[in-house]
Amino acid sequence: MSDDANAKVKIEGLGKDIVKSIKDGKNPKFVTLARKRSNIVYDQKIGYLKLGKAKEERDFVNVAQSKRFMQTIAIAAKCHKFTSENLHTTIRGLFYQLKYSLGEDVDENIFNEQSESNPLIEDLEVALGTTRENLNLNANRKGVLAGNITVMDKFGTETLKIDCSKQGRSGWAIPSDVDNDIEFVDIKAKYVLVVEKDAIWQRLNEDGFWKKENAILITPQGQASRGIRRLIRKLADKGLPIYVFTDSDAWGWYIYWTIKTGSINLAYIGGSVATPEARFLGVTMADLDKYEFLNKLTMNASEVDIKRAQEMLNYEWIKRSKEWVEELERMIKSKKKLEQDALQGPRLTFVGEYIREKVKNKIFLP
Amino acid sequence: MSDDANAKVKIEGLGKDIVKSIKDGKNPKFVTLARKRSNIVYDQKIGYLKLGKAKEERDFVNVAQSKRFMQTIAIAAKCHKFTSENLHTTIRGLFYQLKYSLGEDVDENIFNEQSESNPLIEDLEVALGTTRENLNLNANRKGVLAGNITVMDKFGTETLKIDCSKQGRSGWAIPSDVDNDIEFVDIKAKYVLVVEKDAIWQRLNEDGFWKKENAILITPQGQASRGIRRLIRKLADKGLPIYVFTDSDAWGWYIYWTIKTGSINLAYIGGSVATPEARFLGVTMADLDKYEFLNKLTMNASEVDIKRAQEMLNYEWIKRSKEWVEELERMIKSKKKLEQDALQGPRLTFVGEYIREKVKNKIFLP
Repeated sequence: MSDDANAKVKIEGLGKDIVKSIKDGKNPKFVTLARKRSNIVYDQKIGYLKLGKAKEERDFVNVAQSKRFMQTIAIAAKCHKFTSENLHTTIRGLFYQLKYSLGEDVDENIFNEQSESNPLIEDLEVALGTTRENLNLNANRKGVLAGNITVMDKFGTETLKIDCSKQGRSGWAIPSDVDNDIEFVDIKAKYVLVVEKDAIWQRLNEDGFWKKENAILITPQGQASRGIRRLIRKLADKGLPIYVFTDSDAWGWYIYWTIKTGSINLAYIGGSVATPEARFLGVTMADLDKYEFLNKLTMNASEVDIKRAQEMLNYEWIKRSKEWVEELERMIKSKKKLEQDALQGPRLTFVGEYIREKVKNKIFLP
Repeated sequence: MSDDANAKVKIEGLGKDIVKSIKDGKNPKFVTLARKRSNIVYDQKIGYLKLGKAKEERDFVNVAQSKRFMQTIAIAAKCHKFTSENLHTTIRGLFYQLKYSLGEDVDENIFNEQSESNPLIEDLEVALGTTRENLNLNANRKGVLAGNITVMDKFGTETLKIDCSKQGRSGWAIPSDVDNDIEFVDIKAKYVLVVEKDAIWQRLNEDGFWKKENAILITPQGQASRGIRRLIRKLADKGLPIYVFTDSDAWGWYIYWTIKTGSINLAYIGGSVATPEARFLGVTMADLDKYEFLNKLTMNASEVDIKRAQEMLNYEWIKRSKEWVEELERMIKSKKKLEQDALQGPRLTFVGEYIREKVKNKIFLP
C-alpha cells in the first residue's frame, strides 16, 4: 500500500474510533503529541530534533476544546476526500474548501483565518503518524537537481522516465512530494553535493562538474523545502555521502543545520527529513588560511550573523566540535564573513576545483 | 552569429573606438542612454515602457567621471573574457572578479560594493544595444513550464531535446537566458496561460489542463523573471495568445502589468521583455457577480492593495479601460480582494473549469 493510501486508511480508523465512542456513550477524544517547544528534544544519539512524549488531548464535550475538535475532524474529512479522489492541493486550498463548505445559509465559518487551520493540519499529521504529503497537501517546492539518477514519475495515466543527466541547463525541478508515485532508480552517482545558491549550481552545471565527479548536484535555492530535505534523507539511505556547500554566514549555517538535524518547525516529522550523516564542505573561515586571495574577498558580517554565531556556540552539538567552535569564534572576532560566490574571484571554474580538492581530501566539518 | 558572439564583437568595437581616440589624441568617451526616471517613457502606440532619447556621456579626462569610465571598461573587459571563454556567471560573480583583479599589491579596489557595479552593467547593456544575458551574466531564474512544446538545449557538447509534455509533476525549469543556445520547436499549443502561483500551476498540471486545452502552462512563481518575460514575448511572437491569471490584488495586477508593459527597471530593454498583446483572465472583482460562492471567499484588502489601486486609476492606460476602472473602484469601495486559490472552494477541479469558460467565451480584461 502506498503512503497516501495508507493515510486514507488511517483517517478512516480515526473516524471509526470516534463513531464507536459516540455509540458506546463515551466522550470522543482526539489525541496527538504536543508540538510546543518544551516537547521538542534534540536526541544526541540519533542526531536530530524530534518530539518528546508529551500528549495533547482534545475532548468533544469540553467547551474550550469542542470547536478545535470539530475543526480537526473537518480537516480530516477533507483530506480523506482528497486522497479518495487522488487529487492534490495546498494548505491554502484546503482552507478555502473549509471556508466554503459550511454552506451559504450558515453565518459561522469553520475557519476565519488560515492561521487557525494550519496548526490543526500538523496535529492531524502527528496523531495519524503520517505527513502532509500523504494527506495530498502539497508544500511549497523549490530547487533543482542534476546527475546520474533517473526519476520514475507516475503522473496521471503515464509513468514518465526522467533522466536527470539529460536536463541541460535547467535541471530537474524537485517536487513537493518525493515519496508517493515517484521512484529514484539507476543511481550511479557516488555522492550528493547540496549547493546553497542556484547561481553556483548553474556555474557547476555549466562546468560539467557533476559529470566529471559523478555526483548528484542539488540546489535548494536557499533554505531547503520539505521535499528537498526528504529527498536528501532518501539519497543518504541509499548509501550516498551528503556534502553541503553554503556561504560562511548565519544563513548558510542555518541551511546546513536544518538539513542535518531538522528544524523546530518540522520536529514532528524529524527522522524523515533530517540527515545527521551530512557533512559541511564550505566555505569556511579556515579557507582564509589556505586560499590567500579570499582575504581580499571577505564581506562585513552583519549583526545578525554575529549574534547567531554567538548563540550557536551554546548548542551542545557545537560545543563538541572543535572545528565549529573555531569557525564561529573566528567570525565573531574578525566580524568578517565569506560567500561561496567569492570562489569565482581568480577564475570562474575555480569553484569546482575548490570542491574537488575538499572532497578528494575529505576536508569537511562535522 | 549568435547574440552572445555578437555582444563580444560589440565590446571589441567599443575597445577599438577608445584606443583610436587615445591614438588620435582625443578624449575617450563612453556614451549610453540615460536610465533616469525622466527618460523612461510609456509609448501608447507600442504599449510598453522604454527609454527616451536623453544621452549620458562619460569622459575619461574628467575628474568626476574618470573612475566610472575606468569601472565601465573593467566590466566590459570581464564580459569580453566570459563570452570568449563561453562561460557564464552572475553580476555577483562579476563583482568578485573585479574585486579580485587589481592584484594584491594595490590597496584601492575597483569596486567596494556590488551596488556600484550593477548600474554600470546596465549602462554597458544600453550602450552596446545588447542584454546582460548576451554578456554571459545570468539573472535569477524562477518558474516552470508544461505543454506541447519542445526545447532544444545546446548545452556543453550535447544538444538535448526536452519534451515539455513529458516533464510530469515537475515541469521544465525555465532558465535565465532563453535566447542563446536554446530553441523552441514543435510548438503545437494554441495559447499560453501564465499562472501567478506555483500551487495553482500544480493543481492545473495534475488535472491535465494543458493537455485537454492544448495550452502552454507557465508559472513565474510570483513576479516574472527576465527570462520568463522574454520567453512570453517570444511565444507571443510565434502568434500564441497570452492569458495571465493572477490574484485580484495589488501584487497580482503588478505581475500582469509587468508582463504586458514591462517595468521601469527594465525599460532599457523594453521591447524584448514586454508583451502588450497579453490579456488578463482573472480573477476579477467582476467574478463576484457571476460566481455567487466567491462572495464568501473574499479576503480583506490591505492598505497597500487599496493605495495601489488608487494610484493605478491615474495611469493613462487604465483610464482608457472602463473594465479596469470598474475593477479598481470596486476594490477601493468594498475593501475586499480575491485570490485565485479561492476557486478551489467548491471542488479542486473548479479552477480549470473557470479558466476554460473564460477562454472559450473570451472574457478578458485588456
